[in-house]
Amino acid sequence: MDPTTTGNTAWLLTAIIAVILMLPGLVLFYGGMVSRKTTTNMMMMVFGSFALTAFVWVAFGYSAVFGDSLGGAGVLGNPLEFAGLGQLLTPDEDAALPPLALATIHLGFAGLTIGIIAGAAADRMRFGAWMTFAAFWVVLCYLPVAHWTFAFDSEDGSSTGGWLANALGAVDYAGSTPIHVNSGIAALALAVVLGKRRTWPVQPKAHNLPFVVVGVGLLLTGWLGFDGSALGAADNDAAVAIFNTLAAACAGACAWLVVEKLRDGHATTLGACSGAIAALVAITPSCGVVSPVGAMIVGMAAAVVCYFAVLLKHRFGYDDALDVVALHLVGGIVGALSIGLLAHPDAPIGEAGLLYGGSLALLGKQAIALLATCAWTFTFTFLLAKVLDRTIGIRVTDEQERQGLDSALHAENAYEDPDALAHQPRGHAEQEHHLDVDLGLEAEPIRRG
Amino acid sequence: MDPTTTGNTAWLLTAIIAVILMLPGLVLFYGGMVSRKTTTNMMMMVFGSFALTAFVWVAFGYSAVFGDSLGGAGVLGNPLEFAGLGQLLTPDEDAALPPLALATIHLGFAGLTIGIIAGAAADRMRFGAWMTFAAFWVVLCYLPVAHWTFAFDSEDGSSTGGWLANALGAVDYAGSTPIHVNSGIAALALAVVLGKRRTWPVQPKAHNLPFVVVGVGLLLTGWLGFDGSALGAADNDAAVAIFNTLAAACAGACAWLVVEKLRDGHATTLGACSGAIAALVAITPSCGVVSPVGAMIVGMAAAVVCYFAVLLKHRFGYDDALDVVALHLVGGIVGALSIGLLAHPDAPIGEAGLLYGGSLALLGKQAIALLATCAWTFTFTFLLAKVLDRTIGIRVTDEQERQGLDSALHAENAYEDPDALAHQPRGHAEQEHHLDVDLGLEAEPIRRG
Amino acid sequence: MDPTTTGNTAWLLTAIIAVILMLPGLVLFYGGMVSRKTTTNMMMMVFGSFALTAFVWVAFGYSAVFGDSLGGAGVLGNPLEFAGLGQLLTPDEDAALPPLALATIHLGFAGLTIGIIAGAAADRMRFGAWMTFAAFWVVLCYLPVAHWTFAFDSEDGSSTGGWLANALGAVDYAGSTPIHVNSGIAALALAVVLGKRRTWPVQPKAHNLPFVVVGVGLLLTGWLGFDGSALGAADNDAAVAIFNTLAAACAGACAWLVVEKLRDGHATTLGACSGAIAALVAITPSCGVVSPVGAMIVGMAAAVVCYFAVLLKHRFGYDDALDVVALHLVGGIVGALSIGLLAHPDAPIGEAGLLYGGSLALLGKQAIALLATCAWTFTFTFLLAKVLDRTIGIRVTDEQERQGLDSALHAENAYEDPDALAHQPRGHAEQEHHLDVDLGLEAEPIRRG
Repeated sequence: MDPTTTGNTAWLLTAIIAVILMLPGLVLFYGGMVSRKTTTNMMMMVFGSFALTAFVWVAFGYSAVFGDSLGGAGVLGNPLEFAGLGQLLTPDEDAALPPLALATIHLGFAGLTIGIIAGAAADRMRFGAWMTFAAFWVVLCYLPVAHWTFAFDSEDGSSTGGWLANALGAVDYAGSTPIHVNSGIAALALAVVLGKRRTWPVQPKAHNLPFVVVGVGLLLTGWLGFDGSALGAADNDAAVAIFNTLAAACAGACAWLVVEKLRDGHATTLGACSGAIAALVAITPSCGVVSPVGAMIVGMAAAVVCYFAVLLKHRFGYDDALDVVALHLVGGIVGALSIGLLAHPDAPIGEAGLLYGGSLALLGKQAIALLATCAWTFTFTFLLAKVLDRTIGIRVTDEQERQGLDSALHAENAYEDPDALAHQPRGHAEQEHHLDVDLGLEAEPIRRG
Repeated sequence: MDPTTTGNTAWLLTAIIAVILMLPGLVLFYGGMVSRKTTTNMMMMVFGSFALTAFVWVAFGYSAVFGDSLGGAGVLGNPLEFAGLGQLLTPDEDAALPPLALATIHLGFAGLTIGIIAGAAADRMRFGAWMTFAAFWVVLCYLPVAHWTFAFDSEDGSSTGGWLANALGAVDYAGSTPIHVNSGIAALALAVVLGKRRTWPVQPKAHNLPFVVVGVGLLLTGWLGFDGSALGAADNDAAVAIFNTLAAACAGACAWLVVEKLRDGHATTLGACSGAIAALVAITPSCGVVSPVGAMIVGMAAAVVCYFAVLLKHRFGYDDALDVVALHLVGGIVGALSIGLLAHPDAPIGEAGLLYGGSLALLGKQAIALLATCAWTFTFTFLLAKVLDRTIGIRVTDEQERQGLDSALHAENAYEDPDALAHQPRGHAEQEHHLDVDLGLEAEPIRRG
Repeated sequence: MDPTTTGNTAWLLTAIIAVILMLPGLVLFYGGMVSRKTTTNMMMMVFGSFALTAFVWVAFGYSAVFGDSLGGAGVLGNPLEFAGLGQLLTPDEDAALPPLALATIHLGFAGLTIGIIAGAAADRMRFGAWMTFAAFWVVLCYLPVAHWTFAFDSEDGSSTGGWLANALGAVDYAGSTPIHVNSGIAALALAVVLGKRRTWPVQPKAHNLPFVVVGVGLLLTGWLGFDGSALGAADNDAAVAIFNTLAAACAGACAWLVVEKLRDGHATTLGACSGAIAALVAITPSCGVVSPVGAMIVGMAAAVVCYFAVLLKHRFGYDDALDVVALHLVGGIVGALSIGLLAHPDAPIGEAGLLYGGSLALLGKQAIALLATCAWTFTFTFLLAKVLDRTIGIRVTDEQERQGLDSALHAENAYEDPDALAHQPRGHAEQEHHLDVDLGLEAEPIRRG
């Protein structure tokens, strides 16, 4: 065995843990930004769709990403090649990394990507419709674009990977295309179909800024594992990616604070957090492609551009509640294009951007990858949301929206007063009015009590 | 030195960090589920008993788990063999892993196990009595059962391990028996001795569901390190265990949501969280024993069974406040028995369950391990709690229970109004009424101020 | 390549993740302890100054710590040697660890150190002044003291390191001198210059104790990576450091609880947390120097000494709001001096303290290191704060202090009521009164809505 295999595996397993830490991070980031009347709904959208993704992933999702391309077209992997994942229990002896470790971290990517979209649908989507949307979206949009980006042709030519990473040769170091560009453009399509919240353009304030900050802290922490494990080795390349990721996040937070201080007169917590996330999105494709100074430029550029991108929803009238489009789509575009400009020959990928004597070709490839992803995913997301809207319905009633989705849909509140009492065991939704009828089992001790 | 040693050590150290992350995870999970009048008390029960465990562990606890079995009986390790742990500073050169790394992660296991029990004692136990109970419980119940399960006979025959892992040969991949079955059955005994809360069967609602979700997120994250490090190597076996753990948690969350939606009409946050935890408990013994599809079946089965197990406390009238019995005991039983059915020959352990052509013998061993653990720990926990109740008293007064334990026992509130002011330095409990008498040191600046 | 390099790198990358997890940990720990009217300000002080540090670090900070000592004096590294960090992209082939990995973890140290100081300035410092202070403080105080401690002479004599680690030979295993002693003494100077809050000696109560507990949990988790990676290897030394760190934290939490129970009558959450942090600070320099029993003694001693040190601010009249002096300066002193007493010959460093037959010389070196650090940093911090106070002004107005800094400085509140509505996109501070004038872009949809 290659003596580095164990160390690389240790790092990949660590990165899995870091990536899963992004789940509570995203729950806090989104949960804190919505109103306290829809907090559990938002958390459930993120957590529930993540969990649902596992079914798709085990059944055929992993296979559709990493299986041999159907017809060698580079569009979708063979969904039956690894169906059920049983074959991955006993890998070839010469596998560089345990395949189920790769399957785990990529399940994390898939589950978080659908969760990111939830931010655009805040406060007004039926929970059942969201879960249905999530399952179909992963199949229609995540699996293909992930195959395009993450599946490399095998060295011996026995297996064909995705067109974007191989035939085109666009650079996406850690996977911004299937995750951020993909979720960002999907958020736009979903927000358009869902329509605006009833109070638009006035919107609920973030109900818990400490949650938002801590969420960003956990996301940042996990992002280091995400970006640092992209090439699967615990080496200098990983260190470059990690340093650049942290530096970009810091630069982005500061840049947003400066811009909002100049324009609005105040430096805000939400601004610092937004700047950090915008920068993290933008550095995802470029973290192993630019120098430390380049990373700080990417972070600052992303923060400034995304700051203004937040205003677009008001200009064009789509209610992207938590600014998924502005941060993930626009941030992802900034990151992908910055590679064409700032790629540094000494960085792990070894490409040269325009500023370092490179040609326009790299920039062109990056643009093609972005356009293809946006076209594919906007189309399928729009159609999916429209079909669901016409069939099962995706929007809550006005009355439910006014009441707040936590109590209207989930029969619970994020926070309870000190003296709030439940009359039934946990996991059982609030039904005091017909307790004796439906839940005879629980009702008995009440008489004894 | 074996070239894999460094990589395996890196992974074990990582797993320690993941396991310690479960401490804030458990604090949030339990702290969010109780009323806001007993939040700090619950957090203190978890955090305080964890801290106290370190004294037992350094003095003789580690030694009682991993020392040579007293009399070769497989019941308890020699508590003096490694007393003080000084010998572990300089291990044999051929040690596969640093012994103090193992001592650290197992201290985490012990400290978390006693913390799990606290959920059954919520809202009504004296804090001093809890801490006393905790120290004795670790000695009487944790150390023996951990020795049974975690101490393997040495290869050269120089040291005898626990009966369950060696003489019986029951399968418990990551340690569900000493942790979940053990804490679950202890919770039952303690709840019985403590008696019901005064509002039973009506109980306070979870005061902060975001805490609960984030707690589950941190627990899930840490659980991957816990399950993945069970065999001490960063290899394919670890990857299998980690994938299965994540898949089971996802499946369990979804299954609970479906059951409660069908029965109660609502999918709740608390339900998703409960399903994930039930599944995580059940996959703990089986994560390296089943296939990915098997893991999802274990997760779903655990969620469904535990959902109904939550109702048992109302049927039988024990006030298991946070459902420790339903999740950890019942979930642990589901997991242990599922091995007898679903063990997959290609999984790391290589056993075959009934469904894969195995014999009933494995199922029998699993049942014996469960029964022995339940009998031992119920007996000693019941006796310990009874003795403490008759001597120092374990239950708070009715007045304290009504007031809420935070202010009654700890002289503090989890949350303070914006204008709440403290009159003494932190760490000093609230004693405004006799400030000048007792704390002359602090009183002086008041005159100056 | 040395076959252990990959494993050691994996562990160092993991430690980076653990250290960055301390950022949300510190945000929660400090954010929970202040009033809910200054929560976001405190979080922003920590998060903002951390982010700002990245600019200093990339420009010349890393170089000033790890560059060849200017004039061979051991006081400051050459700030231009690695300016911009571009050289670190392509390290020498024989580098034991990726230099950008070391640059990342040390950026984390620098950013957290300035954040620790923020606790002393709570509730009354202008945000712009804080950010300015932070940038200059890192340059004037952090970079030199970090050079003294972290820069070792190169083996081939080509590069000279810091005087404290080399010429003096004081022992600081994981870096308490530049981090805890440094931030603690700086906190004293800043608190003196800032003056007391208007309600002194009465102070706002911790508004969210769950945040404080979870913050400590995340800090503890991260601290294991911090202390365990000090020597850069995944080996037995790391395991010793990690075990001692966890054991000390547990012992410190229990010791503080006992002292406050005896003196004040109540065991409090804030007490348990304070004891854990005091112990973690004290074990930082000694975690690889003492035995497990020694670690528990260090933890208990730190908790008891720091408990009483909290009272000093009232005796001497400096408003160290969150007790940075009592925990970090005094805890750091306890840790440094404990090495002179308790250093165990079998521990990784292999020194013998007085109790194990060592000489007084070690204790003397430790005292010199402490005195030099305190003298340097108190002087420069005091002067820096005074200069800023006379020029840009560092203190908010009485009216702003009364209002609370969140709304007064940042135009936001940590928590919002369910029906609070924002009239502009996120990141844009509250300016309802002149919305139509300044933010025409957003105003448009209002007419459409």
